Amino acid sequence: MVSRVLEEIKKTIMQRLPARVQVAKVEFEGPELVIYTKNPEIISENGDLIRELAKDLRKRIIIRSDRSVLMEPEKAIEKIHEIVPKEAEITNISFDDVTCEVIIEAKKPGLVIGKYGSTSREIVKNIGWAPKILRTPPISSEIIQRIRRTLRKNSKERKKILHQLGNRIHQETKYENDWARLTAIGGFREVGRSCLYLQTPNSRILLDCGVNVAGTDEKTSYPFLNVPEFAPDNLDAVIITHAHLDHSGFVPYLYHYGYDGPVYCTTPTRDLMTLLQLDHIDIAYREEQPLPFNVKHVKKCIKHTITLDYGEVTDIAPDIRLTLHNAGHILGSAMAHLHIGDGQHNMVYTGDFKYEQSRLLEPAVTRFPRLETLVMESTYGGKEDVQPSRNHAEKELIKTIYTTLRRGGKILIPVFAVGRAQELMVVLEEYIRTGIIHEVPVYIDGMIWEATAIHTARPEYLSKDLRDQIFHMGHNPFISDIFHKVNGMDERMDIIEGEPSIILSTSGMLTGGNSLEYFKWLCENEKNSLVFVGYQAEGSLGRRLQKGWKEIPLKEEGKTRVYKVKMDIKTIEGFSGHSDRRQLMEYVKRVSPRPEKILVCHGDNYKTLDLASSIYRTYKIETKTPLNLETVRIQ
Amino acid sequence: MVSRVLEEIKKTIMQRLPARVQVAKVEFEGPELVIYTKNPEIISENGDLIRELAKDLRKRIIIRSDRSVLMEPEKAIEKIHEIVPKEAEITNISFDDVTCEVIIEAKKPGLVIGKYGSTSREIVKNIGWAPKILRTPPISSEIIQRIRRTLRKNSKERKKILHQLGNRIHQETKYENDWARLTAIGGFREVGRSCLYLQTPNSRILLDCGVNVAGTDEKTSYPFLNVPEFAPDNLDAVIITHAHLDHSGFVPYLYHYGYDGPVYCTTPTRDLMTLLQLDHIDIAYREEQPLPFNVKHVKKCIKHTITLDYGEVTDIAPDIRLTLHNAGHILGSAMAHLHIGDGQHNMVYTGDFKYEQSRLLEPAVTRFPRLETLVMESTYGGKEDVQPSRNHAEKELIKTIYTTLRRGGKILIPVFAVGRAQELMVVLEEYIRTGIIHEVPVYIDGMIWEATAIHTARPEYLSKDLRDQIFHMGHNPFISDIFHKVNGMDERMDIIEGEPSIILSTSGMLTGGNSLEYFKWLCENEKNSLVFVGYQAEGSLGRRLQKGWKEIPLKEEGKTRVYKVKMDIKTIEGFSGHSDRRQLMEYVKRVSPRPEKILVCHGDNYKTLDLASSIYRTYKIETKTPLNLETVRIQ
Repeated sequence: MVSRVLEEIKKTIMQRLPARVQVAKVEFEGPELVIYTKNPEIISENGDLIRELAKDLRKRIIIRSDRSVLMEPEKAIEKIHEIVPKEAEITNISFDDVTCEVIIEAKKPGLVIGKYGSTSREIVKNIGWAPKILRTPPISSEIIQRIRRTLRKNSKERKKILHQLGNRIHQETKYENDWARLTAIGGFREVGRSCLYLQTPNSRILLDCGVNVAGTDEKTSYPFLNVPEFAPDNLDAVIITHAHLDHSGFVPYLYHYGYDGPVYCTTPTRDLMTLLQLDHIDIAYREEQPLPFNVKHVKKCIKHTITLDYGEVTDIAPDIRLTLHNAGHILGSAMAHLHIGDGQHNMVYTGDFKYEQSRLLEPAVTRFPRLETLVMESTYGGKEDVQPSRNHAEKELIKTIYTTLRRGGKILIPVFAVGRAQELMVVLEEYIRTGIIHEVPVYIDGMIWEATAIHTARPEYLSKDLRDQIFHMGHNPFISDIFHKVNGMDERMDIIEGEPSIILSTSGMLTGGNSLEYFKWLCENEKNSLVFVGYQAEGSLGRRLQKGWKEIPLKEEGKTRVYKVKMDIKTIEGFSGHSDRRQLMEYVKRVSPRPEKILVCHGDNYKTLDLASSIYRTYKIETKTPLNLETVRIQ
Repeated sequence: MVSRVLEEIKKTIMQRLPARVQVAKVEFEGPELVIYTKNPEIISENGDLIRELAKDLRKRIIIRSDRSVLMEPEKAIEKIHEIVPKEAEITNISFDDVTCEVIIEAKKPGLVIGKYGSTSREIVKNIGWAPKILRTPPISSEIIQRIRRTLRKNSKERKKILHQLGNRIHQETKYENDWARLTAIGGFREVGRSCLYLQTPNSRILLDCGVNVAGTDEKTSYPFLNVPEFAPDNLDAVIITHAHLDHSGFVPYLYHYGYDGPVYCTTPTRDLMTLLQLDHIDIAYREEQPLPFNVKHVKKCIKHTITLDYGEVTDIAPDIRLTLHNAGHILGSAMAHLHIGDGQHNMVYTGDFKYEQSRLLEPAVTRFPRLETLVMESTYGGKEDVQPSRNHAEKELIKTIYTTLRRGGKILIPVFAVGRAQELMVVLEEYIRTGIIHEVPVYIDGMIWEATAIHTARPEYLSKDLRDQIFHMGHNPFISDIFHKVNGMDERMDIIEGEPSIILSTSGMLTGGNSLEYFKWLCENEKNSLVFVGYQAEGSLGRRLQKGWKEIPLKEEGKTRVYKVKMDIKTIEGFSGHSDRRQLMEYVKRVSPRPEKILVCHGDNYKTLDLASSIYRTYKIETKTPLNLETVRIQ
């Protein structure tokens, strides 16, 4: 069946390409169609032709050179350096024998590509190898290096994976697509362990697969993957909307449990997800509550991940096309648009989303080509969940910092590593640069630094404002001199004993990590301030401090010491990566086309129900609020 | 795990039975516990002891003799005839080597059992073989003979099936029973192909598995068994609430498709279901649209069927107990009460039910030990679905018959073979016997006769009134002289050309069968009457006649002939086997205990929704109206 599809495609390609192009091979590689040719230069000179071909075939097309026209690597490196201007700052060149690609890492990848791709075309013309151009992040990222190394080392295996997957995706459909349904596997009427399962007569797709980090045991921590309709060995695809563990944390388990298919997500999601998954395994191991999977499965996940850009329409099953759209929640966060069957049904799963411009990101996308069912989050879906504007929140923050610095104190801001931390960095950098607060060191402790490095590697996912700053004004706030990475305990002691400063540290709820250490050192001095910018869960130290506790007993080397809290405790709302109640309602109003049905998820029971009934009353759109383990038919 | 359960039970039995009882073996046979002993007479003399043991062990117990104490069959037969009074009219005696039972068929089985089982005990004491006493129906039933033959011939295989099943049922539960859910697989927001799927962490149960006989293709005729959570090879049990094809017609397919577990139903349901399934295969074959299964699979179904009486509590899975209760719809129709887990949840699935006393049956049961979720039908759930009383309907019928007979005409009543036909027979017999209509022959054509025979074999399932007539007044209306079985075309011609009479014939909607032939012969004479007592589906000839069509073109041997309808066309409502709207509402009011949640099924879309919202408004009970393929959590 696949071969028949492929034969048809080959025929079309032969007819459409100029006669002098020698096509060596055409094959599927995951969702993409790869054409191997002995004259890559002719094709690359006919960019429009390939674009049109891709459009007509409704496939993504990659051109690679046939082995016979590849230049010797040593000579090729020389040639590349000749062609690419020095200002591109190439940091590494390597060759992938399996895909016949040359991987060029550069600080300014744009200069390797050239205007309209001219430099890149020049390279392929001269050396045969098709250039794959990657950004060298201005802050070096261990995770990105690790991922690139894994992919390089396992190129052959990955090609095999993609080849098999390609054949699976491009089968003809076996059954008529006369129904589609969604099963709530986790994160319905609750927050945490998000997991949604789409089934059609032809395929099975998992949307997110998270863990509830606040869960007390297996039953409350993990999604209900024992639901009878789910089996990892006949799953077609996993889609991850963003990297937070409550959306991505259980993916390695799928590989442990027998899954060997693809994970679709954006590049930043892959990077950040890997960072968080590895950290999760590490913490669980240290706390002697090991997870039901290990580093091996994270690696397997990396090898099976297919990254997509926003707006890139991709076949992920014989009857399903996926497009990711910006969700505005964290770097790389996406809404998943699924086109099912031959126009039978279209759904959007929002994942977590922010429908407001933030420093870091554009607001969530509202326009889709078609839309019948919308599955949306409701974290702040309650009537009372109205938050101050971003602008107001920033002013509050600056006021607190200003006052604290003036009295000679230090400001501790416990934050999650991914998202809020970088948002704050952009804010702080601007206020310090423009002199609104005077220049003090901002210490970045723990995993925040690595997460920031990943942000610097993917500037194309940032807000237009930031992109303009970085690309056109040559000013990247993340690499500002005011930020200092904290390396080890000695440096921490220096910070504590040193001059006034601002400290960003994990964990975000003072449940452990270095933020808790800083708290112990700083809390008994009334000059200092503690600033919460994120959600503090019931039971966490953060929540207790918000409630006004002034004496905090903490275990230390077996003994309990009581800390007297004298520092100023401040909570600043409005920095959330989630839409508040007004933004959620506004989103439903603006989303286009108007959906026929809305499923509400990812919220406490009361908030889910409240938002759903408000949507129904206000917009007269049918809403559903399934429980975990319930299945709703969408078509 | 099973052996551990069994060891415990054995220990208890040894402790409780008198010391002189020699227990040879204890084993599970399906849901029952079988004790083989060398002194069956001692046990059978201690009936109370066994009853108490059964109650304490919460198991059904059967006592059988050890092979060593069995008398020679020939001698045993002599002995039985000695013990049992002649009036019992034994018609057959056979021996089952596998189960060590003697099967005694008699016209008056009560006399073989004796007062409080005294005669039966006498038999076991004398011959060793445990007597299994069956009724010889006063009208011979081919189907019952066939079923008994199949079971006799396959006794060894059946014992193996039951043994394996016993081990499966009596396992310890593997997982905590923290959820239970129902998937609508067919017959939701529609009538036909009823199929409901119960899943718990430990087991999977199918409730009904019907076909939609009015369906036009596979997709509209059969339940959605391709739903991802369903797999016939890990199904624990199938429960059939009654024999009509829209509830039982697809069961053979399960066996074709790999299922090898039990079907639970009442004895009449097994018999009638077999009759209808075989007829369905036959018709489909003749119409050259063969079904996806054949007679072999019906036979397999018989071998796997475990019959239960009303009120008999039975383990059907490690975590589920089933009890069937009278549903008042047709002979043997049942509501299924399921007790899930250790008291975690109780549900009742009503199947089709009549909440009104009829001639044939008692009204549906309303009292259950516990009840949280009620799944109920809504065939006549619309506001307008109020029907006349049974009494009124009978009067209407009699008036029509009287008038027609007076003018010398014949009355044709097209009926479904099972249910309405027998109800009418009881009515007609009474009115003729009491002289309210004068004695005319009542011709019974087609499958009705066989279905009636099955009714005579299972009098204990009839209404108290009928049972009183049959058992205490020695008067069985079904074997009245007024009824004549029609054998073949010659007799039909005699009936047509003969004196005034009443004709009951299938099919019920004049869509084929002999009723259509009678119609052709009778319709052009204004003296005759056609009486509809059942539902006429849109598109059927019956419906067209109800609408007043006077010229009916019908194909005959390739040509089309137009029949001019001159006969009187009459529709009499009130004979339905379904509760009407008022009875449905009244049932919800009366059912005890009051359920927490009601799922509404088995009705047209509008009627399902209308009944659900009326129930919610009137009784403030949460209602749900799932679509096929949707899953609802009940716990």
